[in-house]
Amino acid sequence: MSFNTFGRVFRFTTWGESHGPALGATVDGCPPGIELDEAFIQQFLDRRKPGTSRFTTQRKEPDQVRILSGVFEGRTTGTPIQLMIENTDQRSKDYGDIAQAYRPGHADIAYQLKYGIRDYRGGGRSSARETAARVAAGGVAQAVLRDLLPDLQIIGYMVQMGTLHLDRSRFDAGQIGQNPFFLPDAAAVPEWESYLDGIRKAQNSVGAAIEVLVRHCPPGLGAPIYAKLDTDLAAAMMSINAVKGVEIGEGMGAAALTGTENADEIRMGNDGPRFLSNHAGGILGGISTGQDIVVRFSVKPTSSILTPRQTINSKGDEIDLITKGRHDPCVGIRAVPIAEAMAACVILDHLMLDRAQTGGNRGEIG
Amino acid sequence: MSFNTFGRVFRFTTWGESHGPALGATVDGCPPGIELDEAFIQQFLDRRKPGTSRFTTQRKEPDQVRILSGVFEGRTTGTPIQLMIENTDQRSKDYGDIAQAYRPGHADIAYQLKYGIRDYRGGGRSSARETAARVAAGGVAQAVLRDLLPDLQIIGYMVQMGTLHLDRSRFDAGQIGQNPFFLPDAAAVPEWESYLDGIRKAQNSVGAAIEVLVRHCPPGLGAPIYAKLDTDLAAAMMSINAVKGVEIGEGMGAAALTGTENADEIRMGNDGPRFLSNHAGGILGGISTGQDIVVRFSVKPTSSILTPRQTINSKGDEIDLITKGRHDPCVGIRAVPIAEAMAACVILDHLMLDRAQTGGNRGEIG
Amino acid sequence: MSFNTFGRVFRFTTWGESHGPALGATVDGCPPGIELDEAFIQQFLDRRKPGTSRFTTQRKEPDQVRILSGVFEGRTTGTPIQLMIENTDQRSKDYGDIAQAYRPGHADIAYQLKYGIRDYRGGGRSSARETAARVAAGGVAQAVLRDLLPDLQIIGYMVQMGTLHLDRSRFDAGQIGQNPFFLPDAAAVPEWESYLDGIRKAQNSVGAAIEVLVRHCPPGLGAPIYAKLDTDLAAAMMSINAVKGVEIGEGMGAAALTGTENADEIRMGNDGPRFLSNHAGGILGGISTGQDIVVRFSVKPTSSILTPRQTINSKGDEIDLITKGRHDPCVGIRAVPIAEAMAACVILDHLMLDRAQTGGNRGEIG
Amino acid sequence: MSFNTFGRVFRFTTWGESHGPALGATVDGCPPGIELDEAFIQQFLDRRKPGTSRFTTQRKEPDQVRILSGVFEGRTTGTPIQLMIENTDQRSKDYGDIAQAYRPGHADIAYQLKYGIRDYRGGGRSSARETAARVAAGGVAQAVLRDLLPDLQIIGYMVQMGTLHLDRSRFDAGQIGQNPFFLPDAAAVPEWESYLDGIRKAQNSVGAAIEVLVRHCPPGLGAPIYAKLDTDLAAAMMSINAVKGVEIGEGMGAAALTGTENADEIRMGNDGPRFLSNHAGGILGGISTGQDIVVRFSVKPTSSILTPRQTINSKGDEIDLITKGRHDPCVGIRAVPIAEAMAACVILDHLMLDRAQTGGNRGEIG
Repeated sequence: MSFNTFGRVFRFTTWGESHGPALGATVDGCPPGIELDEAFIQQFLDRRKPGTSRFTTQRKEPDQVRILSGVFEGRTTGTPIQLMIENTDQRSKDYGDIAQAYRPGHADIAYQLKYGIRDYRGGGRSSARETAARVAAGGVAQAVLRDLLPDLQIIGYMVQMGTLHLDRSRFDAGQIGQNPFFLPDAAAVPEWESYLDGIRKAQNSVGAAIEVLVRHCPPGLGAPIYAKLDTDLAAAMMSINAVKGVEIGEGMGAAALTGTENADEIRMGNDGPRFLSNHAGGILGGISTGQDIVVRFSVKPTSSILTPRQTINSKGDEIDLITKGRHDPCVGIRAVPIAEAMAACVILDHLMLDRAQTGGNRGEIG
Repeated sequence: MSFNTFGRVFRFTTWGESHGPALGATVDGCPPGIELDEAFIQQFLDRRKPGTSRFTTQRKEPDQVRILSGVFEGRTTGTPIQLMIENTDQRSKDYGDIAQAYRPGHADIAYQLKYGIRDYRGGGRSSARETAARVAAGGVAQAVLRDLLPDLQIIGYMVQMGTLHLDRSRFDAGQIGQNPFFLPDAAAVPEWESYLDGIRKAQNSVGAAIEVLVRHCPPGLGAPIYAKLDTDLAAAMMSINAVKGVEIGEGMGAAALTGTENADEIRMGNDGPRFLSNHAGGILGGISTGQDIVVRFSVKPTSSILTPRQTINSKGDEIDLITKGRHDPCVGIRAVPIAEAMAACVILDHLMLDRAQTGGNRGEIG
Repeated sequence: MSFNTFGRVFRFTTWGESHGPALGATVDGCPPGIELDEAFIQQFLDRRKPGTSRFTTQRKEPDQVRILSGVFEGRTTGTPIQLMIENTDQRSKDYGDIAQAYRPGHADIAYQLKYGIRDYRGGGRSSARETAARVAAGGVAQAVLRDLLPDLQIIGYMVQMGTLHLDRSRFDAGQIGQNPFFLPDAAAVPEWESYLDGIRKAQNSVGAAIEVLVRHCPPGLGAPIYAKLDTDLAAAMMSINAVKGVEIGEGMGAAALTGTENADEIRMGNDGPRFLSNHAGGILGGISTGQDIVVRFSVKPTSSILTPRQTINSKGDEIDLITKGRHDPCVGIRAVPIAEAMAACVILDHLMLDRAQTGGNRGEIG
Repeated sequence: MSFNTFGRVFRFTTWGESHGPALGATVDGCPPGIELDEAFIQQFLDRRKPGTSRFTTQRKEPDQVRILSGVFEGRTTGTPIQLMIENTDQRSKDYGDIAQAYRPGHADIAYQLKYGIRDYRGGGRSSARETAARVAAGGVAQAVLRDLLPDLQIIGYMVQMGTLHLDRSRFDAGQIGQNPFFLPDAAAVPEWESYLDGIRKAQNSVGAAIEVLVRHCPPGLGAPIYAKLDTDLAAAMMSINAVKGVEIGEGMGAAALTGTENADEIRMGNDGPRFLSNHAGGILGGISTGQDIVVRFSVKPTSSILTPRQTINSKGDEIDLITKGRHDPCVGIRAVPIAEAMAACVILDHLMLDRAQTGGNRGEIG
């Protein structure tokens, strides 16, 4: 995990800018013999794709993935898999205003300070368009996991948008794919629509919180001390554009708990230990326990907004800036499939790392 | 960052168990020619040391560090620095009860499932005693930073313990070292003492939240996309025992903000860009901006408590468990110097990584 | 350096198969602000390109490189550089015979045993076509080195082909680019041509030895113990297809020397230490000394030959195999630009790694 | 593999200087549940130990290893294993002469140029004493291999010392441990003794070549392109002090072969492919084939000799230098157990890496 590479054994490197000819991911270390084709990966990209509702950017990108290597006659060969997505709807002229000015809250100024040069068109490398590449890489991970852990489920959904919160008592996983918010509560959709319409009309944007649930994850994944499963999940989520906080299980709320409250008591189930609660979010000592893994993170509001903000330009002049162009009023929405992709990659990487060290053998209890 | 190694260029590997003969850190990649001796490192260890107040474990460990390599005539040579701390106050008999039973909320069961074997004495490798080694490694990082970035300040403090919160309007950094809670508010100390005494007497424990502030960090540190500065800080903090959430700047609160609120507007200062607010916590696009870096994390309550909890033993029997031994009623307190150490290591690693890529040159604005 | 990635700080990952749609390299960690365009990289590819003389494979590949990311307005931005080369002259039918049979001396059987699946067309991933991608990556390294170390020269040439050896007393670097053998001796070219024509007509192939000379390399590059400069150069060369031996300076011949013979005595020159000989090949203790770096390696003969050899097929039948198709009679020839590319990448990686650790400062003598 | 760490999954970091208080290795990623104690590791150290014959340095070091972590009740726990060896026979005064002077052919000057500071006592970090630490790490690898690959044999021996060469027709593995030269030919021992006595009396030293044979290595180990098994073996051997060349199978001699000669023809044996020759040295395309792996390397003569050589000192004065102290007349002798240790670590690392990617499954032939 350095520069643009994520992962230790199952590793991918993303490349490409928002308005360059193409972007993609180089996936290395993939197990051989796994069924994989472009259609399988495409379904994940289609969930992240812009322009699917009025609540995402109106940029129209088909995000069609091509597999350029590493797959032969429908199966992975164990060699690097190159996934390429061509950019087709770049409108660089939209970005004239920000070529020489720094959007408040955006990476523009940081890239300028660090590198002394940046591709300003559409945010260049700092654009959330990079996440298409990781969703494609996540598709490869999902194909491998389907083979190695057929029961595993990775489910992402929104739990907060601005002042609106998911009512967990009405959680229905089946609803997640049925609305533009990846919301597991059908009844709340109209309120969320109306709220975000208001934000959009006010030429503003809003933050969000997303949760990813990993069901049927085997115990034993995680390599303490510095490659704990929760450490890697935190890094994975924090690497997503605009993320400002990550929580496992109780998360920040753990600070308010006592030891008696926080203890996930254990009984003996039919096929191993059974926990009576899940404050831990499925991870103890950096290692999965077999419980559901629960990861949550916040996404800050889009910094490209139509409301003028004070800033400076490259000459150091103080100016007011309005960011035109096509932007998501709540960039958090599209973070859902991205987070699922990152979770898939982390789980697979640790499955393989554990296979290296322990051979996949598990300690016996009882 | 794999298994027990943290860092890319400035990297350390910790080793050792709670009740083994010794533990330590192997620090590699350290710049040569830096003044370093055991006394300098010891001051950081002394802040983390157990047994300094009635609010930490009563285990008496001098935590005396020895430098076994990599330093010659008072200066680093650029070769690996071995830091060893001998364990002196192991009382293994205290741990008879947990040899064959799994504390709810503790890593005991996860290690057993993964490895099929564990050193149960004092939690073995999963004990927070490991953190002494990283505090020692952090001391080396601090020595290098003192030389390379003399203005840099890394300041950790508690912001929450159970239901008590720091009143930020009374923040006084000078008070942090003056009380057993690393609390930047002298007036609140009696209330915190009384609260924690209550927890302790109730044979319970409690969670906490800690904040680390990095002042005068230069802009340009961070290597997007997968080695962002905030990604690495999140991984660093999440790797600390019992941490369940990490936030940068606004953190989870960013989900509730609008774009106009969240934008840190920019004006031109005497020596570069000047931000009018710091929702970002000093990091944009994964790169430091020169603003104060703000990292916050939660620590769950100690899982070793004297109140009985339901659990199972290695035979799979369902039992009730009381954890005797010497435990911290609020393990979050001692996380303060640990978090500072981790922050120092991350900052130094990125300073060196940036030096590799950009030569330390900064882009000009204005 | 794992799987398909080479390098620590300046790192590239190659991807692609001999008969897939394309192949390429993902270059990461490149310094920003470096002038770079496709024409600059192309010149290196053109030297490696097949079909330029009757002594290389007759496959006609233009090996036209496209830069898909990481370069903006003619300069690198510090983000990943994707280099893609489309395959245009695949003739998969040529390879029908080897789809189910294993060429003796070739990787066919090893890939089959390891992965249980392989893209047999043209050798798939094990084809020397992969080296086009590293030559492209080397072009990026050359662009950076031109900027950071303008005096550095990396010069590869053949020193042996079968029974023919370079007469070092007639070494003339200016001749290297003037003949199909990268031979620094114009007078010997006719003999080499005639020899290789004989090999080719005999439906055979032959081995070779190549030397790379790095002139004006600064002292101080190399990170002992396990990232010594010579260690990395050895790994770089050994990773090239068909390489069976690597030597630094005296190489295997050092076994026959005495200490008095081998000592490169030192005098004081105008601008630092001056060595009276160079048995060391420019590297002591894994660190460059400022002397010329000398690396040499052998390349085994092409295993695809028209003379029948005994082997087995995928059913385990014992067969005789003739390998048709278009093959190099001496694959070592085209290893010259590949080795230069690898040397450039190693030197740059170590320059950057050294910059990270020492800031590029050098110890003073005298 | 960076700085002082070797390996990807099974990885060790060595630390310590020749005349510091101790040196050692931090071994990480070791599989759990493996039988291991100090006596097992000690047997490997005893083979490398100085002072065992008149042909090695007279420094008396017991090289007693202590396991400080990672082993519990006689078995590895999967956590880092710290191996420490205390230095006991440092005679720093011996090294007064070289404190400010640079031995020709030695790393002294390179360390000075790179780091600007060095522990000159006994060569500090560049001393071959570091290799004790890797032999200890190799002992851990051997313990794991004994468990996972009980048939595997790793056998090192000398094949050349100065002008003397092993007569391969008299190879007898049983003799290797019976003489001070690790020579597989009892009859040649007197001649080797007499030759090296001559070198020693002439106040000189001499080079050597060592071969390592790995028998019963399973096929499928090696992760092309940049983590080929032969690439890693080359890096492993080249990282040993004073090594100047590495060969696999035919090695440099492959340059002289034709394709018909070099083809290792294949027949079908009872339990898989059977090769009629082994020019490849057991590795094709970077992957083991199941044949014996053959690695060979040269070691230059000790540069610390009693015969005066021209050099400079730290002031830049030109001087003549005699190196007193206790030095090996042929440092290559003790490279034998070091090379075996490195081979064990490489094989285990690749066994684990392959287990990660393929699950250890092998492709079927026949």
